[in-house]
Amino acid sequence: MEVDFSKIEYIAFDADDTLWVNETYFREAEEAFASLLEGYETKNKIDQELFKKEMDNLALYGYGVKGFMLSMIESAMEISNGRVSLEVLDKIIGIGKKMINHPVELLDGVEEVLKTLSPKYHVMVVTKGDLLDQERKLEKSGLAQYFHHVEVLSEKKETNYSNLLEHLRIPAEKFLMIGNSLKSDVLPIVNIGAQAIHIPFHTTWQHEMVQGDHASDTYLSLDSIRGVLKYL
Amino acid sequence: MEVDFSKIEYIAFDADDTLWVNETYFREAEEAFASLLEGYETKNKIDQELFKKEMDNLALYGYGVKGFMLSMIESAMEISNGRVSLEVLDKIIGIGKKMINHPVELLDGVEEVLKTLSPKYHVMVVTKGDLLDQERKLEKSGLAQYFHHVEVLSEKKETNYSNLLEHLRIPAEKFLMIGNSLKSDVLPIVNIGAQAIHIPFHTTWQHEMVQGDHASDTYLSLDSIRGVLKYL
Repeated sequence: MEVDFSKIEYIAFDADDTLWVNETYFREAEEAFASLLEGYETKNKIDQELFKKEMDNLALYGYGVKGFMLSMIESAMEISNGRVSLEVLDKIIGIGKKMINHPVELLDGVEEVLKTLSPKYHVMVVTKGDLLDQERKLEKSGLAQYFHHVEVLSEKKETNYSNLLEHLRIPAEKFLMIGNSLKSDVLPIVNIGAQAIHIPFHTTWQHEMVQGDHASDTYLSLDSIRGVLKYL
Repeated sequence: MEVDFSKIEYIAFDADDTLWVNETYFREAEEAFASLLEGYETKNKIDQELFKKEMDNLALYGYGVKGFMLSMIESAMEISNGRVSLEVLDKIIGIGKKMINHPVELLDGVEEVLKTLSPKYHVMVVTKGDLLDQERKLEKSGLAQYFHHVEVLSEKKETNYSNLLEHLRIPAEKFLMIGNSLKSDVLPIVNIGAQAIHIPFHTTWQHEMVQGDHASDTYLSLDSIRGVLKYL
């Protein structure tokens, strides 16, 4: 695609799986969860039931580890037909606490990119999920110094972005979003007249998958975050 | 005290127990929790253990219903010495879901005050807790139309307020905070050179209690939110 970023003044980075590893820990947690319940169901069925529970609870709990913990607990009780032991439930809580306490692993090239861009643009983080958890990850990441603003949203739909730009008084044509999720970081952004760069992460949560083909003449897709330096 | 609000241009309201009932539902949940576990311990001991668990988990889970649910589950397993039934755990999860789904009950006078002040000041909500939960309550409250800005913080300490004012470019002397918690809404605000009005709610969470006397010549204390209209 022909990209023109000459009007861009504000660059927002998604956090999870754009700046640092996240989805991998959820996959590992799901593996551990399935192992704990292997006496009751096949791994496939356990995965499906947990995902279904997460989706049922999403409107209630939102994104983040605490809601995931509660969904694991509820699923374990159902998958086992009320036979799961308290020891297993205790281990499930342990899986969640380990996730919250996990060290932050930056993705390759992130610090170099932020160091280069932060003196030239208004650089910010726009992420969704649990407020405390995201603030804690940002602090642990050592990246906080590069960001002029940090915004944690409860959802990343068009209206959330429109409200954010209005609130920060940023014209859409000056705004560029960089992230790993087509559904959350790219398509809604393009739809409100701003620009987006898609940098896929090797693992995508089922809930973030997008059906069908998407014309990439409306956004740039790159293999690695380092690639943005060729354009910005 | 002699108050002078003539420089105030921005008025921030705390949400829980300032605009709407909140703490009451936590007290009711604690009652229900204690009833479920009455076979194992005295009510007093159950209350103490749950509060202790909440405090142990606070740095990890932050404020809000989901963390409270996880603390109840962990407490139930410990208080019962690993004997609590899954039926009881399921009921505990039900207590939490009921809290999340609870209708919003506005406190007396709130709508009148917001209707009067919102055309004359930049009126905002500054609350802490779970992002999604607070956004949902604001929407259910029917009050969203009165607020120019909504900020959910992970904590309400001096630095959180200083960062917020800096980010919104509001000079401290133009900022007034109105809330029910001396610890979270009043003392840190007075300490950063802004003004505060304290409107106590009949129930205060133990964690929000402040030790010692506090000179009320640095802030105004009122019985009801309606009282602010005499000053603003």
